[in-house]
Amino acid sequence: MDRERILSGMRPTGRLHLGHYIGVLSDWVKLQEKYKCFFMIADWHALTDRTDTKEIKENIKRVLIDWLSAGLDPQKSTLFVQSHIPPHAELHLILSMITPISWLERCPTYKEKLNQGGENNYGLLGYPVLMTSDILIYKANRVPVGEDQLPHLELSREIARRFNHLYGEVFPEPDSLLSKTTKILGLDGKKKMGKSYENYIALADEPEVILKKTQRMFTDPKKIYIGDPGHPEECNVYNYHKIFGESSGEDLERIFQDCQSGKLLCTSCKKNLAAILIDKLTPFRQKKKELEKEEGILQKILKEGEEKALTVASSTLKQVKEAMEI
Amino acid sequence: MDRERILSGMRPTGRLHLGHYIGVLSDWVKLQEKYKCFFMIADWHALTDRTDTKEIKENIKRVLIDWLSAGLDPQKSTLFVQSHIPPHAELHLILSMITPISWLERCPTYKEKLNQGGENNYGLLGYPVLMTSDILIYKANRVPVGEDQLPHLELSREIARRFNHLYGEVFPEPDSLLSKTTKILGLDGKKKMGKSYENYIALADEPEVILKKTQRMFTDPKKIYIGDPGHPEECNVYNYHKIFGESSGEDLERIFQDCQSGKLLCTSCKKNLAAILIDKLTPFRQKKKELEKEEGILQKILKEGEEKALTVASSTLKQVKEAMEI
Repeated sequence: MDRERILSGMRPTGRLHLGHYIGVLSDWVKLQEKYKCFFMIADWHALTDRTDTKEIKENIKRVLIDWLSAGLDPQKSTLFVQSHIPPHAELHLILSMITPISWLERCPTYKEKLNQGGENNYGLLGYPVLMTSDILIYKANRVPVGEDQLPHLELSREIARRFNHLYGEVFPEPDSLLSKTTKILGLDGKKKMGKSYENYIALADEPEVILKKTQRMFTDPKKIYIGDPGHPEECNVYNYHKIFGESSGEDLERIFQDCQSGKLLCTSCKKNLAAILIDKLTPFRQKKKELEKEEGILQKILKEGEEKALTVASSTLKQVKEAMEI
Repeated sequence: MDRERILSGMRPTGRLHLGHYIGVLSDWVKLQEKYKCFFMIADWHALTDRTDTKEIKENIKRVLIDWLSAGLDPQKSTLFVQSHIPPHAELHLILSMITPISWLERCPTYKEKLNQGGENNYGLLGYPVLMTSDILIYKANRVPVGEDQLPHLELSREIARRFNHLYGEVFPEPDSLLSKTTKILGLDGKKKMGKSYENYIALADEPEVILKKTQRMFTDPKKIYIGDPGHPEECNVYNYHKIFGESSGEDLERIFQDCQSGKLLCTSCKKNLAAILIDKLTPFRQKKKELEKEEGILQKILKEGEEKALTVASSTLKQVKEAMEI
């Protein structure tokens, strides 16, 4: 039997950072061993909340390089750019005809964007329809989502059901694949890691940049003088040790105790963390440098991925049209 | 210099009737002499207000046959089915990102559909975005519209302006081409001619059907007995004479006077009208019968039209993407 299919994607918003890796990418790298994975660079999605498109092309290349550096394997997964597969747009249009506006208006992310002062464009309201098309055009059985995306996926399931009810069984109802990913805060310890918050470590950051950024991390504000006891359970730096240190053989228990006892200085603790992160990201950086030299390889990978994606998407679209008798 | 381009379309809702001919088709037949015309069978539009798709395929064939019977010439005009040209859907998606919902909500036809109890689907709200994509993908300079479509066209112009402003001059702003078409009421003399009102004469109606339908037409209710004076200025049958009789050499002045004086009986008047309509529609019917025997010709015409349409549409889409740098 065919392996179950997975669809997921990222917007081409720039260099990827540790937050992407921990929250999404490291998960994808595992998923590709078990599932037939379709990973798209969602450039159309990037247009739902901005009109500035200047950097999209460059960002697509950046994202692809970071994906490959982090371990996505074009032999195992289908990697492609969303807008290069026209059937997404066709299915989006067809699904728009059977999606009640009330379903879209109740999406929490839509309300959120509007509250943030976002422009209320037709495409912003329809973002979940496009996402549904992305999923259904590959007949994905599972979609790795964070909790904030669950309402969208529920909507995708409703649209799939509605289509199947009206025109006959074409789509599987996509199930969520809630990843047990670790939450990671940005370097400021306050907000989620994000490029716009300038609180990130990029996967491609050079060692000296990682060191500098790590040194600026906030630590326990109650630990003021050398020797003061620390509170690792509340410290963002300790959390980073927990996330990245274990696989590097760190003795977390020891760090915890030495912090609590006041023996471990914050500067040392951060220097240790920087060393671990640098170590962890070195292979990424090396792979990235290789890839950047080989523009042709990137194009070849996308081209092959797009051929595979297009074959599946066109076949689904054909079934859709047959079912609708159009 | 290239001729100006025109885009127009009809939904595949069934056999065309005299209302279509007088209101639209006869105009198109003239326009194709002067403009580079793109005429589409708008099957995606047909989905904006109904989910039932059972007859779409058959209706596409019917519409095409009626178009050709009425004088549209595939050597002069580009005839195609909307859904066979994927760039419409891609441009629709792109334009959806720059179209404020408020522009769409204020469209009178949208409000009307909702008032009629139509289902408030995303695609219904977005109908003018799709129409805009239809127009802009061919860089149409002019769009023949009825007055009820003027707000949609104004919206298309706004979307074109917005795109050009954001990404550079790609689209001409489409101008309306208000046709001086004659309004024709249905056989009941009350509503606009329409299939759903059962008050129509189809272009393909057989002579005996035309005769029967004409005989059932309402005439002047104040003319009760033979010899009563008629009121041709208020009579739907006289209006039909005005529309169809002149080109057949009818003496309209004479009919007017003979009606007013009571000399011309309504039954005779309607029999005369039937003869004119039968005469007028005979070539349509003959052409239609020829075409129905030649399934291959229809497919060839559409295929050739679609190749031409696709070439233009793909080229525009390429320019759009270049302008947006995506």
